Amino acid sequence: MLATADKALLDAVLHARGPVQRRAVAKAITLLESTRADHRARADALLNALLPASGRSFRLGISGVPGAGKSTFIEALGLHLLQAKHRVAVLAVDPSSSVSGGSILGDKTRMERLSVQADAFIRPSPTGGTLGGVAAHTREAMLVLEAAGHDVVIVETVGVGQSETAVAGMTDCFALLQLPNAGDDLQAIKRGVMELADVVAINKTDLDPAAATRAQAQITSSLRLMQHGGRTRGGVPWATRVLTISAVHGTGLVEFWQAVSAFRDQQVASGQLAARRHEQDEAWMWERIEALLHERFRTHAPVAAALPQFTADVRAGRVAASVAARRLIELMA
Amino acid sequence: MLATADKALLDAVLHARGPVQRRAVAKAITLLESTRADHRARADALLNALLPASGRSFRLGISGVPGAGKSTFIEALGLHLLQAKHRVAVLAVDPSSSVSGGSILGDKTRMERLSVQADAFIRPSPTGGTLGGVAAHTREAMLVLEAAGHDVVIVETVGVGQSETAVAGMTDCFALLQLPNAGDDLQAIKRGVMELADVVAINKTDLDPAAATRAQAQITSSLRLMQHGGRTRGGVPWATRVLTISAVHGTGLVEFWQAVSAFRDQQVASGQLAARRHEQDEAWMWERIEALLHERFRTHAPVAAALPQFTADVRAGRVAASVAARRLIELMA
Repeated sequence: MLATADKALLDAVLHARGPVQRRAVAKAITLLESTRADHRARADALLNALLPASGRSFRLGISGVPGAGKSTFIEALGLHLLQAKHRVAVLAVDPSSSVSGGSILGDKTRMERLSVQADAFIRPSPTGGTLGGVAAHTREAMLVLEAAGHDVVIVETVGVGQSETAVAGMTDCFALLQLPNAGDDLQAIKRGVMELADVVAINKTDLDPAAATRAQAQITSSLRLMQHGGRTRGGVPWATRVLTISAVHGTGLVEFWQAVSAFRDQQVASGQLAARRHEQDEAWMWERIEALLHERFRTHAPVAAALPQFTADVRAGRVAASVAARRLIELMA
Repeated sequence: MLATADKALLDAVLHARGPVQRRAVAKAITLLESTRADHRARADALLNALLPASGRSFRLGISGVPGAGKSTFIEALGLHLLQAKHRVAVLAVDPSSSVSGGSILGDKTRMERLSVQADAFIRPSPTGGTLGGVAAHTREAMLVLEAAGHDVVIVETVGVGQSETAVAGMTDCFALLQLPNAGDDLQAIKRGVMELADVVAINKTDLDPAAATRAQAQITSSLRLMQHGGRTRGGVPWATRVLTISAVHGTGLVEFWQAVSAFRDQQVASGQLAARRHEQDEAWMWERIEALLHERFRTHAPVAAALPQFTADVRAGRVAASVAARRLIELMA
């Protein structure tokens, strides 16, 4: 049940506009990110209450290595979409922020021109916690922003660990920014991220147009070899589109938006967008279940007391790993 | 505590030779694979009892797509090693056997010439269960075979899902068999398996020597681009070696064994082999813990009763995924 204060908060998220709504959105997201037990109960009630108003956005994932020009590109794209009367939100999944304490993506001073726009909302990556925790907070923030009427939610990430897989698993369309350098495409193929991409945009074509054209041909050819049976997304054929852009000069933005929109339209028409979101929601539930089970295990007092000795015994070859696992689990019974 | 019958079994595994030992090894592995609760307690006791005698083998992982010639190659390599007085065991991690009921790798009639040798032991992949379960059984079988004096344990797998990562995580050296086809290297890079490989062997060079040489150059160049900072294993520099072989004609076997042995010697000398095995054991303990937590969750009666409705509510957007996860976990308290 929603407390009176949280009812007012929900109301402001759903129906206010301008600075009042912006403050309510920020407050709601902060509540959802809180780890305090009393906040968690309030957060759950708020989340369920705004759920019916969520889901009505184009969820676009964008990734690329540091230096690929993600911020410049997203700001230019965001400003372009605001002109077309979209309401744009930008979220970030940045697992580096939990490791380094700092953050590759989460700098609030980035995208200065976009962040001052009334219809834009930029939220840095939640800090602390595992990728699973960061991803969960980002998903919940996305629901708040959708309930507040943002119809384009861009989720940005950087190529660290499994963050691209996490972002592809929470968005409708996944785009990859590439640099026109030899080897950059191989890195993306190696990390499995090229395979996730519905659209590949080769940025910084202004610096060396010939290199960009070569990179486009190279990536197109690699994708054809990798996807020789034809790539599908949700059973619907979709060959990854490869574009060249210049975020600094704003060239290729229109073509980029056309490509991702074409993908999305096809997914909507085939019913795959809805089907995939249902799958994503169920997978998200299981991710959270596994994370909570893990947390319960680690914080269970008899387990916490016995774990160091079992770990040492397993590492020293005194106890078989599977035997140690079973004994530790038995401590929970 | 070991029962009297299991003490005799352990004794036969450790000290018998010939058919008596072979039967004892097979029986011990079958006991470790059993899911019966009373067997499990006996299996744990047996596993801990043979643990001190395990670990004294070269654990070699070999992967490759179906048709790469793994069976022919492993049989030829095994016969070659028997001549050099090694005692060779071959295990398989084949997740397809749990999906299809059948098996890509686990056919007992394969490797007919190797399987009849007194100092060779070939065990098909355990069937049923998840990749995690299959991998756990394979690890435990490896310990039995080491305790029985097998000093080379080859763990074979096929490129399905995460099976190569699982095999690389239980072996000292990981080798990849490639076909000299355009695109085969990109598939391996895409699946992340090229990155795992300490040695790449391009097989079937007899069919088209020119294509094999081209593939060797192509893979070497791709690896150089991917590993431009230099590849390390356990902090020790090791550039993936790329060889050409013909399993059918037995060419390249000596060079292959030299390459994997050179890698292993370097890892032993640097202390990394022991350090990595400790890490693998601890990681394996955690894998089993997560699997057992998941099983406890799914079989908990109130959870099992509530799960279908929560799943349906999450998929229909009536309950937020993270809220459903917390409510389900609360049912276990």
